[in-house]
Amino acid sequence: MMTTVKPLTDLEIAMQAELRPITEIAKVAGIPEEALEQYGKYKGKIDPNLIAPQGDDAKVVLVTAISPTPAGEGKSTVTVGLADALHQLDQKVMVALREPSLGPVMGIKGGAAGGGHAQVVPMEDINLHFTGDLHAISTANNALAAIIDNHIHQGNALQIDPRRIIWKRVVDLNDRALRNVVVGLGGPAQGMPREDGFDITVASEIMAVFCLATSLTDLQERLANIVIGYTFEKEPVFVRDLQVEGALTLLLKEAFKPNLVQTLEGTPAIIHGGPFANIAHGCNSIMATQTARKLADIVVTEAGFGSDLGAEKFMNIKARMGQFKPSAVVVVATIRALKMHGGIAKSDLAQENVAALQQGMANLAKHVDIIRTFGVEPIIALNRFITDTEAELQAVLDWCATENIRIARTNVWEQGGEGGIALAQQVLQVIEQENEFHVLYDVTESIEQKVTTIVQRIYGGAGVQFGEKAKKQIQQIEQYGWDILPICMAKTQYSLSDQPQLLGRPEGFTVTIREIIPKLGAGFLVCLTGDILTMPGLPKQPAALHMGVTADGKAKGLF
Amino acid sequence: MMTTVKPLTDLEIAMQAELRPITEIAKVAGIPEEALEQYGKYKGKIDPNLIAPQGDDAKVVLVTAISPTPAGEGKSTVTVGLADALHQLDQKVMVALREPSLGPVMGIKGGAAGGGHAQVVPMEDINLHFTGDLHAISTANNALAAIIDNHIHQGNALQIDPRRIIWKRVVDLNDRALRNVVVGLGGPAQGMPREDGFDITVASEIMAVFCLATSLTDLQERLANIVIGYTFEKEPVFVRDLQVEGALTLLLKEAFKPNLVQTLEGTPAIIHGGPFANIAHGCNSIMATQTARKLADIVVTEAGFGSDLGAEKFMNIKARMGQFKPSAVVVVATIRALKMHGGIAKSDLAQENVAALQQGMANLAKHVDIIRTFGVEPIIALNRFITDTEAELQAVLDWCATENIRIARTNVWEQGGEGGIALAQQVLQVIEQENEFHVLYDVTESIEQKVTTIVQRIYGGAGVQFGEKAKKQIQQIEQYGWDILPICMAKTQYSLSDQPQLLGRPEGFTVTIREIIPKLGAGFLVCLTGDILTMPGLPKQPAALHMGVTADGKAKGLF
Repeated sequence: MMTTVKPLTDLEIAMQAELRPITEIAKVAGIPEEALEQYGKYKGKIDPNLIAPQGDDAKVVLVTAISPTPAGEGKSTVTVGLADALHQLDQKVMVALREPSLGPVMGIKGGAAGGGHAQVVPMEDINLHFTGDLHAISTANNALAAIIDNHIHQGNALQIDPRRIIWKRVVDLNDRALRNVVVGLGGPAQGMPREDGFDITVASEIMAVFCLATSLTDLQERLANIVIGYTFEKEPVFVRDLQVEGALTLLLKEAFKPNLVQTLEGTPAIIHGGPFANIAHGCNSIMATQTARKLADIVVTEAGFGSDLGAEKFMNIKARMGQFKPSAVVVVATIRALKMHGGIAKSDLAQENVAALQQGMANLAKHVDIIRTFGVEPIIALNRFITDTEAELQAVLDWCATENIRIARTNVWEQGGEGGIALAQQVLQVIEQENEFHVLYDVTESIEQKVTTIVQRIYGGAGVQFGEKAKKQIQQIEQYGWDILPICMAKTQYSLSDQPQLLGRPEGFTVTIREIIPKLGAGFLVCLTGDILTMPGLPKQPAALHMGVTADGKAKGLF
Repeated sequence: MMTTVKPLTDLEIAMQAELRPITEIAKVAGIPEEALEQYGKYKGKIDPNLIAPQGDDAKVVLVTAISPTPAGEGKSTVTVGLADALHQLDQKVMVALREPSLGPVMGIKGGAAGGGHAQVVPMEDINLHFTGDLHAISTANNALAAIIDNHIHQGNALQIDPRRIIWKRVVDLNDRALRNVVVGLGGPAQGMPREDGFDITVASEIMAVFCLATSLTDLQERLANIVIGYTFEKEPVFVRDLQVEGALTLLLKEAFKPNLVQTLEGTPAIIHGGPFANIAHGCNSIMATQTARKLADIVVTEAGFGSDLGAEKFMNIKARMGQFKPSAVVVVATIRALKMHGGIAKSDLAQENVAALQQGMANLAKHVDIIRTFGVEPIIALNRFITDTEAELQAVLDWCATENIRIARTNVWEQGGEGGIALAQQVLQVIEQENEFHVLYDVTESIEQKVTTIVQRIYGGAGVQFGEKAKKQIQQIEQYGWDILPICMAKTQYSLSDQPQLLGRPEGFTVTIREIIPKLGAGFLVCLTGDILTMPGLPKQPAALHMGVTADGKAKGLF
């Protein structure tokens, strides 16, 4: 890495690897032959009904991070590297990750399959269509939209108000021109004109439903519960009123089976589901985590963004609904990112700056506190970057020693599992002990109470203000009896507060809730603190411009 | 069938069948192990580059039909049944079919996988997502659309006129509300507002390109040649100007490999690609047909609608571009459909009516003539239906004897391959002999000349009239030098003329060409004779309302 030789890209590393047939990986994972459906030579789907549980003792290790910065922290890379390290230590381990969306792949960069020597493979397949799960979700989402517009066109027996339809269409692409559209133009034979919009597929409520359902039956019930809009009398209209929960379940039934792949080191990996971490909960599917728990002794998994978002929702939403608990939590941090939290610009990160680093460690300290709030022992993964200096590294280690916080240095991008052995050893120590994991609130508390708990105990804010619209919505939600659901906060990931520019560890701030969107299928109430972009745009030079296929049919231009 | 017991549905028959693992089917077909990628237990993709040709002698048998009627003819069913019959006669045979679109499946009825005991299986997978090819095509189509709108939003260096973009977005659903939309609303950050529309995926030019490309390199070249719109100076803008032909090829590279499945009798079947038969050419991919020709001695395939549309394009477009020739053509007809051509209403078809039948045979006679025009010997498959009477059947047989036309009765829906043995024996006789197959026109002829040839020699019309718009377009097309392409007629399938109500064998009519759309990627000029619906709508009671999943995860409600 110190020479002038250009380092290999993630795609080059992934494509040089000698992959093992997925049938062999399935054997390593203890998956019976009849439960594996191959998708090509290196991917498979697992029928969870054909996996016998080995007991309910499998430990879940969650990997989360400090508040993300443009410097990058490498959370997925550490997740994969930790699993590989545990594998090297002869543990029966699986890693469970989210599926990447095609939008960012074609837009800015490759997917969420780790990096360097800590990747899941086949990288190019995982980032392009994979086993078609996101396409199935897009199709189910858009079939529902077509059914809604057709219902209105064919006489509107349910009296759906075209102005109050909240169900949007989706594509799994970054396409800003579809954010706000008018559909149904062209005269009476072409449907009812109305305002509409497209989200990216990972923002679909069906993606959230897909990831929180605990069985095919539960999937169908959750789909039936989705509210698609309101009648002229302002009564909610559910999917079950349209009678298409069966068809939507049918469209999703194969996708609902978790996908098996491998890491570069042959550790079995499940990649399944990938909801947004703002308007949804940002974790892979419960089916994936629970299937991995049936097969392995340790399941390493991750959640989106920092611990204030991903880990909070992992605990309060996913673990609650999936009825399991995390045995340890890894908080990924880098010297570079901590220096950004200490006020240094991205262009100056290469210079040693211990003072800025120490200031930025306040952000890390808060994330450690968040994990402890849930009764779980945090372990910091200090993820190495080439520009880190010994003085900087030592400053973090010293602080951890003073504060009595577990820490391990990782170098998995360069070394794979070997670079994660120290972290793995810490994890093994922590999961040996029972912890006192608990969710932070009871769903029967009021909406105001639940949100206040999150803001004060997780974000470290002073309090919560509910805007006029949100207040009105709370009334309506209580009237329908929908208030007894967990909260899904939609907040900037860049700050612990709701103001993206407040890095480090802000205090005394008030979080404003502008809008509350009930997601009855997913089973949570989304609380918006600002505008959340549910359809990204493409940059001026999209990554797609550099993509292609080699003469022998191999991918090129993926990162 | 004569008892009051409710006959099994296609889905029930398909699900009762004992399927053979796709690895075994691959062995039967002579596909080497390394060339098969499994997609589940009963589907696979074939890497055509790993299939050695066995010589270029494999015969292609095309199955076409009389002008379709609401009575149904059973073309796909006969195609599958004929292949099964040839298989029973120990021929090395494969069947090559189109992939069904999800739109009609969710809308009106099941897919295009045959019926009764002459089906391709797994029926439910083939009709739902299959191996994801259509999703890959939708994604490529919509990625291109996003790139176009992003290009305009980011400064519009190419000076694309937003009013003159001809590239539409697609979904693989019936969704009339998307036919005419306005995108880019919401202010300057959300793109440039403009009129747009969605087609169903099978109407995408990328589907046509996908089906006519002869290699991955050819695929990329064809994609690069697609015209997406015009500049403010009215100059054409190509995909290559946007530099995304590489990314689109990458999105399609796995889908481009033909899919292997089996018939209910274990005959190897390739199902790949499925373009519209009006604004496109309506045949499965050249890759599929050519891969099947490398593996088998006889390839049975079909083309959309009647011989005036599907077969004409099969000959003049697909066979020309794929550089192969059909050795025999089967024309499917039923007594019921012929009686409809003789003027009988659908509700009266159960009654014997030899006079109406004889009148309707004029339609069949014309389709026989069409096939002979190409220098190929037609064989009529008289596909049995329960209400046929002996007098009616005899009338058709007598007429064929008088006119010296080959005919065989088929009963494959009820009997599978056994019900197609007589047809198979006729086919074997015909393909023994060299024929004088030739395409009907040279691409260097003028547009007017090529269209006139099709109208006079195929449709039996008196002549062609070009509307004002079409005339102007011909000038423009000639100016760009795009006139030296084959013609893809977009005409009603219900009549040999361009007027749907003219059943039987109309004569003396003039066909009006209203519009000509150059499809430079596909490599043909679409000539529209009327409004062609490229986005179907859902009926009042969509089939989706009856679909679902059984407790053990099986599909229900597919037809």
